[in-house]
Amino acid sequence: MTTKYKTTQACNLIIFGTKGDLAKRKLLPSLYQLEKIKLIHPQTRIIGVGRANWNINFYIHIVYEALERFVQEPINTKFWNILKKRLDFCNLDVNEIKYFNQLKKKINKKNKITISYLAMPPTTFGIICKGLNKIGLNNEPNRIVMEKPIGSDLKSSQKINNQVSKYFLEKQIYRIDHYLGKETILNLLTLRFANPIFISNWDNRSIDHVQITVAEDIGIEKRWKYFDNIGQLRDMVQSHLLQILTIITMSPPINLMTDSIRNEKIKILKALRPINHINVKNNTVRGQYTTGYIKGKRICGYLEEEGIKYNSHTETFVSIKVDIDNWQWSGVPFYLRTGKRLSDKYSEIVIYFKNTTFNLFKNSYKELPKNKLTIRIQPNGGIDLQIINKLSTLNHKHNLQCNTLNLNFTEKSTKNKFLEAYERLLLDTMRGMQTLFVRRDEVEEAWKWIDSIIKAWKINSKTKIKPYQAGSTGPEDSNNMIKKDKRVWNKYNKNINII
Amino acid sequence: MTTKYKTTQACNLIIFGTKGDLAKRKLLPSLYQLEKIKLIHPQTRIIGVGRANWNINFYIHIVYEALERFVQEPINTKFWNILKKRLDFCNLDVNEIKYFNQLKKKINKKNKITISYLAMPPTTFGIICKGLNKIGLNNEPNRIVMEKPIGSDLKSSQKINNQVSKYFLEKQIYRIDHYLGKETILNLLTLRFANPIFISNWDNRSIDHVQITVAEDIGIEKRWKYFDNIGQLRDMVQSHLLQILTIITMSPPINLMTDSIRNEKIKILKALRPINHINVKNNTVRGQYTTGYIKGKRICGYLEEEGIKYNSHTETFVSIKVDIDNWQWSGVPFYLRTGKRLSDKYSEIVIYFKNTTFNLFKNSYKELPKNKLTIRIQPNGGIDLQIINKLSTLNHKHNLQCNTLNLNFTEKSTKNKFLEAYERLLLDTMRGMQTLFVRRDEVEEAWKWIDSIIKAWKINSKTKIKPYQAGSTGPEDSNNMIKKDKRVWNKYNKNINII
Repeated sequence: MTTKYKTTQACNLIIFGTKGDLAKRKLLPSLYQLEKIKLIHPQTRIIGVGRANWNINFYIHIVYEALERFVQEPINTKFWNILKKRLDFCNLDVNEIKYFNQLKKKINKKNKITISYLAMPPTTFGIICKGLNKIGLNNEPNRIVMEKPIGSDLKSSQKINNQVSKYFLEKQIYRIDHYLGKETILNLLTLRFANPIFISNWDNRSIDHVQITVAEDIGIEKRWKYFDNIGQLRDMVQSHLLQILTIITMSPPINLMTDSIRNEKIKILKALRPINHINVKNNTVRGQYTTGYIKGKRICGYLEEEGIKYNSHTETFVSIKVDIDNWQWSGVPFYLRTGKRLSDKYSEIVIYFKNTTFNLFKNSYKELPKNKLTIRIQPNGGIDLQIINKLSTLNHKHNLQCNTLNLNFTEKSTKNKFLEAYERLLLDTMRGMQTLFVRRDEVEEAWKWIDSIIKAWKINSKTKIKPYQAGSTGPEDSNNMIKKDKRVWNKYNKNINII
Repeated sequence: MTTKYKTTQACNLIIFGTKGDLAKRKLLPSLYQLEKIKLIHPQTRIIGVGRANWNINFYIHIVYEALERFVQEPINTKFWNILKKRLDFCNLDVNEIKYFNQLKKKINKKNKITISYLAMPPTTFGIICKGLNKIGLNNEPNRIVMEKPIGSDLKSSQKINNQVSKYFLEKQIYRIDHYLGKETILNLLTLRFANPIFISNWDNRSIDHVQITVAEDIGIEKRWKYFDNIGQLRDMVQSHLLQILTIITMSPPINLMTDSIRNEKIKILKALRPINHINVKNNTVRGQYTTGYIKGKRICGYLEEEGIKYNSHTETFVSIKVDIDNWQWSGVPFYLRTGKRLSDKYSEIVIYFKNTTFNLFKNSYKELPKNKLTIRIQPNGGIDLQIINKLSTLNHKHNLQCNTLNLNFTEKSTKNKFLEAYERLLLDTMRGMQTLFVRRDEVEEAWKWIDSIIKAWKINSKTKIKPYQAGSTGPEDSNNMIKKDKRVWNKYNKNINII
């Protein structure tokens, strides 16, 4: 490549489910942002698909409304006028295969590539692929983009993947996990493999344990019907948390090519120690929020949410102690936790390094605090390294203190605006870069492990769901799980100084 | 010890040379500060010694004047009144041994310990010790504190040390190197031995090279007569820079006792590769400042300074490449530089870590920037760790950037005021804690190595002194010396953000 950027190619971008929440909140605003920075190919067309008797002008109106609502700034007329001209709409019930011909008419044949973005429930993926096949939009170099959830267990996931792979090759399929588009996650590769100071400290000889937290303060946002069938484990751990875990722990890839990286990630997923009815009690805690307060506001419990039909046992919180049974990570526990209606919305990875084998300061400190690397994913993306320093004091003993070296990616000094995850991921679909998307075997290996937990919960009657107050940090049992190992969850630091 | 602090003991503190610059600028203001924080024992007496026909009231007046001038804040009457009552003065020509009896009369015999602080030229050390012997102030538990320079080469240093050790045991002798009292230097022990993340990266397997800079913007301040006989190498490298070097590189001591640490430091001094007439040209550069500008102000050259008597070849700048011939440091060069009339006044240690053996980002970067740990000694004491991160960009390649994790010790958030070096060192003499003072064998081993350089300069006629402009960073040859090794001097970062 001699060009600085791998540019997007001229394509037809079909958005199935353009009337839906994802399209309005994320996809259309991201396309607008990409338009602003002139990264969409001039010939590219955007075709919304939905069941509505809209003409093109009404669709343009709908898109503009979405931008006005979800773009965090005034819409620039110049760029909107360019974006507007790309738009088209196709009224299509995807279950009626015969109508796909109407979609075909909307396709600009000059564009060699059509990208079908499925922002729809996975039950429709099979029929849409069949329809795309009918109108010849499934062959290379066409692409398909799929939103999670891809199934709710290994079996249903395989079914969907089989339906899709009947018409598309793996290299045409882009499975979205939007966490992979976050700058702070992308930076992990660099942090791990360009910094010798960390490289030499990145395995079970140096690392004591790792904590990964994805905390939400929102509840189920009226998605009770969807969520109650899924639960937090399937919704968040199978995707985001396991993806983070693999990137943190994978061995150095031989190069930065898509499949070199994916090949290392899958090795971690295969090395996850299965959870069964014997170890499930010690290694997992599931919880469900009850009435409480977040930032002074009263929050109803999960069982009082709108749409509730019965006394549900679906978990809205889960914490898991994960063992990776391989050479580098044997003996290093990874503590994962994620939940809804917690006190704060934040995601972070915290790496605790082992203590020195010999404590030179033992007369003053029986045990030294640990070096700790905090990778703040959101909000306030950045890195903190806790080190131990001498306290400036007159005490004749060695009084020590923990200090934090920090780096905030959102400092003003950062010249480049952060790309939103969806902006980057949409861009990469248009560039044909698959690295930040999840390969089929990763999805399925993750499901296999998640299924083992679900099964173990069913068998072991002692793993009942634990209530936790909305606005807390989860059930007490979650604290106890890590306390048993003489460790504590990292306390969230709200007060990061953004300069 | 059950008390929190090792407190000072009741003592008689005799300041020989109380009329001098050091006493006025540093010792008396430090005693005032220690008074303020109530760390001087109530019974302690302070006796100024000098050749002047002063009565006690006039001496009190002189001390007050010094405090008003050199304490950076208004003098608090309450503490001054306490300090004042401790003061006494003794008119004494130290060369007249018979008059020491007058000093004896001033001593409060209730105080078991007398500390004699020699703020005088080293030529007087012998006679003062003899006088102290005469009046019985040399035996244990009495102490003696000596200011550098202790000689100007190994031989003269041995002579002084012999004179002193005739009357005092090594454990009674406190040799000051005020750099050892600086908080940022004290912190090195903690930084190195309480932080596993650094411990595992602290030898020739991980460190590429180290730079130690002690830059002054002042000139010789009318001390031409003294300085021209000494030069920068003897004045700064023999003491401060070699002390820093030993603390950075010494092996972990078996404990934190004074001699355990000194035993490790001396091993480094013994392992310094001697510089001889063959390697001196490659490994040293000496310079002398010429007319120039510092912060817009015209500065005269060394040869135009007040008091200049001849066309001097004394160096005001020196840079040296040091090799440590031991197991841990073989192959790691230490670049030292110090000079007067440089662009900025600052001291720092910069540790460059080796690159990864394999460059995963080789398609984008032929060579990665190095991880770099900067230990800022002064001003703005703190620690910076340069790491490499992904640049937030749309570029499809891996664009990287260097970012700095920083920690400023002078941040407001640090609750404890920094002790000035002299405050801490005076306190430690009164506590009987010898760790921060230099042992005789260290002084002599350092001189041995310094002597080898002086000798080599004399023999090798190609090591002429190089001119450099006042306000620059030293002679061009200094840059070339490190450039030959494909390295560059770290650029001083004035703009540390102090929050």
